[in-house]
Amino acid sequence: MAGGGRRLHLNAFIQGVGHHEAAWRHPETDPARLTDVRYFQEVARLAERGALDSVFFADALSLTEDIRYQPIRRPEPLTLLAAIAVATERIGLIATASTTYSEPYNLARQFASVDHISGGRAGWNIVTSSATGAAANFGFAEQPAHHDRYVRADEFVDVVTKLWDSWEDDAIVGDRDAGVYADPDKVHAIEHEGPLLRVRGPLNVPRSPQGWPVLVQAGSSEDGRDFAARHAEAIFTAQQDLDQALAFAADVRRRAAAIGRDPGHLRILPGLSPVIGDTEAVALARKEELDALAVPEYGLLTLRRLAGVDLSGVPLDDPVPPGLLNGDAVETSKSRRALVADIVRRERPTVRGLLRRLAGARGHKVIAGTPEQIADHIQTWFEAGAADGFNIMAPYLPGGLELFIDHVVPELRRRGLFRTGYTGSTLREHYGLPRPESRYASRATAAR
Amino acid sequence: MAGGGRRLHLNAFIQGVGHHEAAWRHPETDPARLTDVRYFQEVARLAERGALDSVFFADALSLTEDIRYQPIRRPEPLTLLAAIAVATERIGLIATASTTYSEPYNLARQFASVDHISGGRAGWNIVTSSATGAAANFGFAEQPAHHDRYVRADEFVDVVTKLWDSWEDDAIVGDRDAGVYADPDKVHAIEHEGPLLRVRGPLNVPRSPQGWPVLVQAGSSEDGRDFAARHAEAIFTAQQDLDQALAFAADVRRRAAAIGRDPGHLRILPGLSPVIGDTEAVALARKEELDALAVPEYGLLTLRRLAGVDLSGVPLDDPVPPGLLNGDAVETSKSRRALVADIVRRERPTVRGLLRRLAGARGHKVIAGTPEQIADHIQTWFEAGAADGFNIMAPYLPGGLELFIDHVVPELRRRGLFRTGYTGSTLREHYGLPRPESRYASRATAAR
Repeated sequence: MAGGGRRLHLNAFIQGVGHHEAAWRHPETDPARLTDVRYFQEVARLAERGALDSVFFADALSLTEDIRYQPIRRPEPLTLLAAIAVATERIGLIATASTTYSEPYNLARQFASVDHISGGRAGWNIVTSSATGAAANFGFAEQPAHHDRYVRADEFVDVVTKLWDSWEDDAIVGDRDAGVYADPDKVHAIEHEGPLLRVRGPLNVPRSPQGWPVLVQAGSSEDGRDFAARHAEAIFTAQQDLDQALAFAADVRRRAAAIGRDPGHLRILPGLSPVIGDTEAVALARKEELDALAVPEYGLLTLRRLAGVDLSGVPLDDPVPPGLLNGDAVETSKSRRALVADIVRRERPTVRGLLRRLAGARGHKVIAGTPEQIADHIQTWFEAGAADGFNIMAPYLPGGLELFIDHVVPELRRRGLFRTGYTGSTLREHYGLPRPESRYASRATAAR
Repeated sequence: MAGGGRRLHLNAFIQGVGHHEAAWRHPETDPARLTDVRYFQEVARLAERGALDSVFFADALSLTEDIRYQPIRRPEPLTLLAAIAVATERIGLIATASTTYSEPYNLARQFASVDHISGGRAGWNIVTSSATGAAANFGFAEQPAHHDRYVRADEFVDVVTKLWDSWEDDAIVGDRDAGVYADPDKVHAIEHEGPLLRVRGPLNVPRSPQGWPVLVQAGSSEDGRDFAARHAEAIFTAQQDLDQALAFAADVRRRAAAIGRDPGHLRILPGLSPVIGDTEAVALARKEELDALAVPEYGLLTLRRLAGVDLSGVPLDDPVPPGLLNGDAVETSKSRRALVADIVRRERPTVRGLLRRLAGARGHKVIAGTPEQIADHIQTWFEAGAADGFNIMAPYLPGGLELFIDHVVPELRRRGLFRTGYTGSTLREHYGLPRPESRYASRATAAR
């Protein structure tokens, strides 16, 4: 296998009826199915047909004002994962959940439950919830500060993993004759008393197949990178440029190594939205067709929300005034704003041009091309060490993912880059990550 | 149909491998399947084969010290319901969730999600979490007081139902040509600012098939009864005695009517644990076999935990000293303690006798008998107005429920008491309850 023994990883990012903001207007999608769980099960089975590592669901804890122009794209991820788990056999299942607006006991328990239900396929994409609307849905007058959210996230992850460890793997005795079900000495109160959280434990479900569901993270701020280096086993990231992607990967691995983690236990997975055609011309026409369906009013709202940039006063066909992107961004949107500023600096687009440029991307890399061209990009970044794999953001669903599974995956296999079928049964096994031992088991063993 | 046009309702209460505390030691059960979701799917399909109204899952937010003697009986209910929903077609799905230790936005969203996933079959059993261990898992030094928990529960239910109403039923426009997905005038911020909760809304999922998942409640204290009268559409209750059950039903209906609710929109469902045999002697022997498997140490722990009564100092074969049950119970266990005191007063059991008496019941009615005798009990209570149906707590699972479905349900049908198949597709339709309109829709209509 190419890549020096490393294995390529591919996730299917599933948002609404596709990553492109106009996907719901595309004739091949059916937005009416967004409240039909069978739609999500079908997309997950499609990804499983390609032996992808996982399906991944983003989330946000508020409804944004753009509901006029865009379908709701976020069913509740944990209940959704449970419903998908029982309709699939092998594919990993990653849900996003917030450390700012959840109780660690409830969250630890629900992820452990999904890990049980799926036989060890759960992953938790840890977010601190940057959407400003979320705070008001959880009793806060305003959004807690960026750094404060990360401080809580650190302690929150500590509590959740302690709860996942609270049952040792062999705590269940199950001796019917003696009437002994579990060994209480192997079920541990965690007695966590931190600056922000107090949780006694133990968790009220036994240890799950993976020990810990896989920890996933996507922050790219300084706090976000440090957090990822400390906790993440898979990192999602938006990267447009190979050199910048290499620098990001090196930086995160360095931070991980600096605190004693094995940087080989990090999977770095940039987003990639492939618009696929038999020829490059067909692919470009398909992209153009989608971009032309984008509603400018929606693009302006999204730009303001995700990058803190208000272009509503500029005529659509005027160039984006570069000055608008100077100055401090609000805390929540620094990395996305830098990405937009970079595009404006390099390409000098009109407002309409910028909106179209972002319509299919939301900051992520878009490539329109043939299956071979998509595979070239994947191979180049993978072999350069800029990526351990990709988060595949099909522009429209399920059709756009189907093209990827049927045409790009086989091409990657021909090149010896991607598995021909599952070799493991858990998400940790797909990612090649170790299964954590319970910290309490180690302690008990050491004391014996 | 008998019963003056009223319809009989039957839920399957599913806890571990059966309601009897020794079920896991019974040769017909398999406690190793308690982390296998297929076990729960199979039990739900069994209940669905009998056209029962629902499966119902209790819950508690801590692990109790009895884990040595008793399997974990509580998978996380909301993820579990989602996994069961997609393996069943018609049966209602009721999960227990706490108003004390949840965020209303998260809870409203997850129940709406289960309602979407199941096509309108979700119910929420509202609890304030009386288990003392829960507080310590959620940052509290001690359990909030009984009355305070109910005050929060009231406001919590208000917020959750507002969130469920926040999308009007026709908010989704879905006009691809115009690029308009939803009508923002039909998606409402709830702007809730109460004494305990501040939630802006709207919810970030569209209105679910039932409008509101069915509201279920099981409190029997004064606060609990008032709460049930205000909010509950189905009420679970522990009743040993026909007269007391009649008094309870009349009391709750009176309280509901007093605040202007239609008492006909309340389904009162006492627990019933049927031990079934071809003859009464076979049934009694089966009950004796189960009771003999009960572990006294476990019974003592449970009695202390659920009823606040510590009998550990009394020899097992001495009578229960009635004085031990005098004095005030802790707030959390008043009704359960009164029930135990009643048994002690009437039957004067030994400690061992009391523990066996409670082993299969946990305060609920146990009847060992033939299918005809079980049906007689159901018919008598139903026709007297003491019950609109029953929460069937099979002593062991799935075998005990299978006997009920195959022998008692057909007997109830022969008597014209129970449906021969589903006539509706939602839990509200099974229960004969109206679908709530969005409060915001009514307001808008009134203003037009």
